[in-house]
Amino acid sequence: MTGRNIVLVDPLPRTLDLIMEPDVRARLEKLGELVISEDRQMPAEQVDALLPDTVLIFGQTDMPRERLERAKKLKAIINVESNFLPNIDYQACVERGIWVITPASAFSSPVAEASLGMAIDLARGITIADRQFRDGVEEYGLAGNEATFRYAGAPIGIIGFGDLGRELRELTRPFKNPVHVYDPWLPNEIIERLDCIPASLDQVFSQSRVVYVFASVTSENQGFIGKDHFAAMQPGSAFLLMSRAAVVDFPAMLDAVISGHIRAATDVFPDEPVAADDPVRSIPGLLLSAHRTGGTRDAFYKLGSMAVSDAELIMKGLPPQLCRRADPATASRLRSKPVSVS
Amino acid sequence: MTGRNIVLVDPLPRTLDLIMEPDVRARLEKLGELVISEDRQMPAEQVDALLPDTVLIFGQTDMPRERLERAKKLKAIINVESNFLPNIDYQACVERGIWVITPASAFSSPVAEASLGMAIDLARGITIADRQFRDGVEEYGLAGNEATFRYAGAPIGIIGFGDLGRELRELTRPFKNPVHVYDPWLPNEIIERLDCIPASLDQVFSQSRVVYVFASVTSENQGFIGKDHFAAMQPGSAFLLMSRAAVVDFPAMLDAVISGHIRAATDVFPDEPVAADDPVRSIPGLLLSAHRTGGTRDAFYKLGSMAVSDAELIMKGLPPQLCRRADPATASRLRSKPVSVS
Amino acid sequence: MTGRNIVLVDPLPRTLDLIMEPDVRARLEKLGELVISEDRQMPAEQVDALLPDTVLIFGQTDMPRERLERAKKLKAIINVESNFLPNIDYQACVERGIWVITPASAFSSPVAEASLGMAIDLARGITIADRQFRDGVEEYGLAGNEATFRYAGAPIGIIGFGDLGRELRELTRPFKNPVHVYDPWLPNEIIERLDCIPASLDQVFSQSRVVYVFASVTSENQGFIGKDHFAAMQPGSAFLLMSRAAVVDFPAMLDAVISGHIRAATDVFPDEPVAADDPVRSIPGLLLSAHRTGGTRDAFYKLGSMAVSDAELIMKGLPPQLCRRADPATASRLRSKPVSVS
Amino acid sequence: MTGRNIVLVDPLPRTLDLIMEPDVRARLEKLGELVISEDRQMPAEQVDALLPDTVLIFGQTDMPRERLERAKKLKAIINVESNFLPNIDYQACVERGIWVITPASAFSSPVAEASLGMAIDLARGITIADRQFRDGVEEYGLAGNEATFRYAGAPIGIIGFGDLGRELRELTRPFKNPVHVYDPWLPNEIIERLDCIPASLDQVFSQSRVVYVFASVTSENQGFIGKDHFAAMQPGSAFLLMSRAAVVDFPAMLDAVISGHIRAATDVFPDEPVAADDPVRSIPGLLLSAHRTGGTRDAFYKLGSMAVSDAELIMKGLPPQLCRRADPATASRLRSKPVSVS
Repeated sequence: MTGRNIVLVDPLPRTLDLIMEPDVRARLEKLGELVISEDRQMPAEQVDALLPDTVLIFGQTDMPRERLERAKKLKAIINVESNFLPNIDYQACVERGIWVITPASAFSSPVAEASLGMAIDLARGITIADRQFRDGVEEYGLAGNEATFRYAGAPIGIIGFGDLGRELRELTRPFKNPVHVYDPWLPNEIIERLDCIPASLDQVFSQSRVVYVFASVTSENQGFIGKDHFAAMQPGSAFLLMSRAAVVDFPAMLDAVISGHIRAATDVFPDEPVAADDPVRSIPGLLLSAHRTGGTRDAFYKLGSMAVSDAELIMKGLPPQLCRRADPATASRLRSKPVSVS
Repeated sequence: MTGRNIVLVDPLPRTLDLIMEPDVRARLEKLGELVISEDRQMPAEQVDALLPDTVLIFGQTDMPRERLERAKKLKAIINVESNFLPNIDYQACVERGIWVITPASAFSSPVAEASLGMAIDLARGITIADRQFRDGVEEYGLAGNEATFRYAGAPIGIIGFGDLGRELRELTRPFKNPVHVYDPWLPNEIIERLDCIPASLDQVFSQSRVVYVFASVTSENQGFIGKDHFAAMQPGSAFLLMSRAAVVDFPAMLDAVISGHIRAATDVFPDEPVAADDPVRSIPGLLLSAHRTGGTRDAFYKLGSMAVSDAELIMKGLPPQLCRRADPATASRLRSKPVSVS
Repeated sequence: MTGRNIVLVDPLPRTLDLIMEPDVRARLEKLGELVISEDRQMPAEQVDALLPDTVLIFGQTDMPRERLERAKKLKAIINVESNFLPNIDYQACVERGIWVITPASAFSSPVAEASLGMAIDLARGITIADRQFRDGVEEYGLAGNEATFRYAGAPIGIIGFGDLGRELRELTRPFKNPVHVYDPWLPNEIIERLDCIPASLDQVFSQSRVVYVFASVTSENQGFIGKDHFAAMQPGSAFLLMSRAAVVDFPAMLDAVISGHIRAATDVFPDEPVAADDPVRSIPGLLLSAHRTGGTRDAFYKLGSMAVSDAELIMKGLPPQLCRRADPATASRLRSKPVSVS
Repeated sequence: MTGRNIVLVDPLPRTLDLIMEPDVRARLEKLGELVISEDRQMPAEQVDALLPDTVLIFGQTDMPRERLERAKKLKAIINVESNFLPNIDYQACVERGIWVITPASAFSSPVAEASLGMAIDLARGITIADRQFRDGVEEYGLAGNEATFRYAGAPIGIIGFGDLGRELRELTRPFKNPVHVYDPWLPNEIIERLDCIPASLDQVFSQSRVVYVFASVTSENQGFIGKDHFAAMQPGSAFLLMSRAAVVDFPAMLDAVISGHIRAATDVFPDEPVAADDPVRSIPGLLLSAHRTGGTRDAFYKLGSMAVSDAELIMKGLPPQLCRRADPATASRLRSKPVSVS
């Protein structure tokens, strides 16, 4: 340990330029001496050499207990990929008072906005009507609204009520929808406080005209939304899959759309990029989005600015306020695949 | 004049079934003796015979001064087409204390909702991304957001701030957009009260990323939005024409989209239905809607229920509360074409 | 009739300085040639001499039909006292297309704000607790909250849902109260649109912990709130009289407070100023306000600016947007006493 | 360690009946075997005997490291007094993954509501006007509003932006106040997200007509608001002290009120109960409240229900959602006196 205060930056698959505008980067540089590895993951020897002087890690560096023991000055590990990975000993961090945090909500705002746009699209038939117009088979006025419903006032369901679900809830307020929420990790108070109704998964599907899925994948909930849930939806209802493909029985979802029972929008797919000949590309009632609702220019910058703002608080001895904290018990349940495309 | 109280129903191009659910029709029947002409406009002799006993007219019957003079018991003329036409002597109605009203705002809610959906679509590229996915040329993540912008926080402009513009303003509140409004018929107070900024037409175009047009056509404003306004918009901005095609120089709008300077959505066209070979059908940056954003099932019913609710008030000697009143000065400026397709 | 365009200003009991800041007065002066009588009502001969050239009247000048007939250029009469009086032939104005309007809602905002403050005061015992503290008998913590209830979430009732009632409704939104509204002049749609529940007068009293009275006096509703209504309230509930004393059986209200059954606040009294020895001054459960909730400095200026803004629209041939219009049928039902104290 | 799962309940100065309604207590009983000490703090020997089998502690039991080491099954310590005390080894809890939490926000809603009521009272002179009316010196109309200002639109300042400050911010939204916030523990993002302006302490005082103090006492901020801050306020402004007397130079505050420079409301005092002859009782411009804004019946019950809801999550291996977590660094800075009166 020398007198140096290292800020170890190991952000792949992100880069600093991707996530920080110049003014934010300037603030980062005030927190310590930056050592950056952007073209590849930082080599083990380099990490090991820097650890005794490292005060902050920005990135997804492996941090098993033995490394943490040598990082005596380390105050925080800030994951900038936005999913906690199993390469950190979370319990060891807790014991040493090392914050492990991630600016997960950076993507909430663009995803929520796109979700609402897609929900109105499904309800009112916007993309389909545009396609019909291009095909010369448009219908005017009331006839053009046959298979549609009003988004305003329609009962909606939200599955997964973290930052993203709550952001969507705020965006949809002026539409005065009754809102049922399913989130088994939350007490009813959190749901009711935002004027929503706590509900079982079955209730969400049977009572909603629009169902939004924002749930993360955990070791326990893979494919927890399936055939019976789609069957329970009212005909012509809308289903939006905005978080992870693995929480849904994807083929069952496609079947429900192909049959004409429901319409759906999806931003995620079991395998991305989707194969050129995947039949998913030609399902009429499916609104297709190539994992692009969250990855806007501003969202990446917000990721970086949230990370730096919380690092500043931590360096002052204050708790972080913007990032999500890894709780050892829950971090170990999360099962996101690492991001390969930014 | 006998002891009868006639409610003259002459609603073409609407029909009573189109605009009234059974419970609303039952309320209508309590207001007087219904005489209905739905398959054709009510013949002149029939109207003339009924006039002395008529208390209410629902529909678009010609009412020149000489007819009004014979309609001694008439309390209100309720236009159910939702545009005031020049076939009524408005001044004569005012002199006799005959209300002339129309439930114009019945269509505001579905149009506002669709407008917001289309604006998010243009900002975030939803329909275009779906089309690219179907064509096998989708882009993932950040790359898929190249030509997009965030709707949240984007400066927006509203042209025409009647019921529809104000409804859109409420729907967009959670997105925290700065909102410039141009409406030459309104004092600044009305605009500021809803947390918007009164602006000139030029300011609206130069300062907004999204411009919504909700203005009615009058004898004075035909084609008042033209080439220079589109040129003043920032590249990649969004323009939504939701009211009447005649307020815009339509070819200039198409040119601005074809050139790639802006993206646009339109619900209206100079001639409807649009010709099968109209090149408008294949402009990539144009979101096409066949005059269908307002004409939802619920909107027609709301038209009827608003009309009956106000008729009930009028029959009690109270002023109407839901319909728009024809002011002689302004009614004579309006230049809507009669609706031919419901 | 000469080429002059007179703006006749006859504003007693107001004065121009009371209701117009310099910039607003400057706008007024652009509308025509001002002739002002502020120290006394404008003498009849002066009015008669000016009428042929008068385009606008600001004030409460008598305008029977014969005067209106000579006022060929008159476009509007703008009452600046804010209550329509029976000294105008409203029907004659309608026939001639002369607007009769008043900026009645100028006082809504200060009254609504004070009403909410007083309602929280009654619910939480703020003024009473202050008095107890001064008397040395305060109670701390839970003991100090014995006779109180939470305003947040408490069912409230609103009697009279004009500008003022609706403004209060907006102010109380964050408290998430269920809101029952009684207003016999309105259709349910207006009430439901603001997320309130249309109710009978009896329902309002039996179901609310806080009842706000904002109703105007008409020829039909004097004393329409009485003993039985107070008896129907839950013990410890709050009653706020904010509009006119005459709508309530005032002694019955006082009895209900003296008995300890309810608490009340009143801004109005049957006779004002209240006699020095009136026992109303010493009722402990009554929050006393000397007809002062509306008459704030800004409200008087708003009165003037609303009047001038609408006059500007009228002079351009457009309908007024801010003031209330006199409907002949309803204007004749209103029974306010002229204001004697500003 | 036996097979028992003890829930150790040591809630003084609270009691279970004070904080839990029967249904909540029933939920508590499902979490383990309750051992309760309500008439006195639980004796040390009893605590020591129970610790090996204790899974949850509800209360303020001393928990130094040596006790924590023997509490192998302990999952959470839930402070039900709502202030973290220095009798727990927070670092040792963190190391062992023992949650230390408190339902601090239970009191936010009643305090926020009373604060808004008091702020409107100070702005509009409600309590003072009532006192004048009782003294026979009331003024009517505009004259009665001489020393007042409109709360709506007035710039306000909030010092301390935790649950309580944010709740007040939501309550004040319809009034459209510009809101400056001072909170040195928070990044600007948190403040801006709620449409407020981050500000220095000096800015808050110089730019606000109403200043709300919700800050907790820490080892660093005692008396941080003083004479110069009051002097910087505009004459006639309002100051509300709603959290802890120790954050303010209390005599300086009283001087500023006595001099007539500002008006103030206070819910807290350096010594409570206040002495019978304390001159604070007779300061005209001071609105007095006997530490009673938070301690409502519903708030105590909410304290208990929040505690039990989070305990339920913790027993399922999930993180708590409603209570505040003790961060070792910040818990040690807090310097609240233990509550002696509930």
